[in-house]
Amino acid sequence: MSLIAKTPKPPYYAVIFTSHRTEGDNGYEELAERMVNLASQQTGFLGIESAREEVGITVSYWADLESIKKWKANLEHQEAQKIGREKWYSSFKTRISKVERDYGI
Amino acid sequence: MSLIAKTPKPPYYAVIFTSHRTEGDNGYEELAERMVNLASQQTGFLGIESAREEVGITVSYWADLESIKKWKANLEHQEAQKIGREKWYSSFKTRISKVERDYGI
Repeated sequence: MSLIAKTPKPPYYAVIFTSHRTEGDNGYEELAERMVNLASQQTGFLGIESAREEVGITVSYWADLESIKKWKANLEHQEAQKIGREKWYSSFKTRISKVERDYGI
Repeated sequence: MSLIAKTPKPPYYAVIFTSHRTEGDNGYEELAERMVNLASQQTGFLGIESAREEVGITVSYWADLESIKKWKANLEHQEAQKIGREKWYSSFKTRISKVERDYGI
């Protein structure tokens, strides 16, 4: 279950991953869940939010760019990125952004 | 239908709006659609992506902070924000972030 992430006071970083899936599971559900668990164990990980309808949007939050770089280079994650490009996503966009301000209820 | 937004080369801005809905529609669907149409007419609007499961995530993209500020202050949007706080959302978080880098397929 995805909730609103409890992030600290800005600044911090958000990786906005938007995607269109291909047909079929192709191992997606299991490996995607593994990646969320693995990400949450990384240094600098602050939280993750995810929802899918026509597009899927996953936003992960990180303390700094170095943490994002290390997570992108994580070997198990690299393998999943490769499978994602080959099997799961017909298109995707990853955006690295710096959260400057936040508010809410 | 929400697609992957065709945004220009960074830098640009992303407003990440994550929310939990209350029960019932309460005029949400109609007014939310109106807000997407209205947002897309504003100066500096670059695109929008949206999906909802347990949480709803809407990411709108903007050329600069001034455009975001003006959209937040738009009178019809202000009224919708008020209704959102009172009726639609049990909780939400808005994060203003600067997209520094992007890539995809």
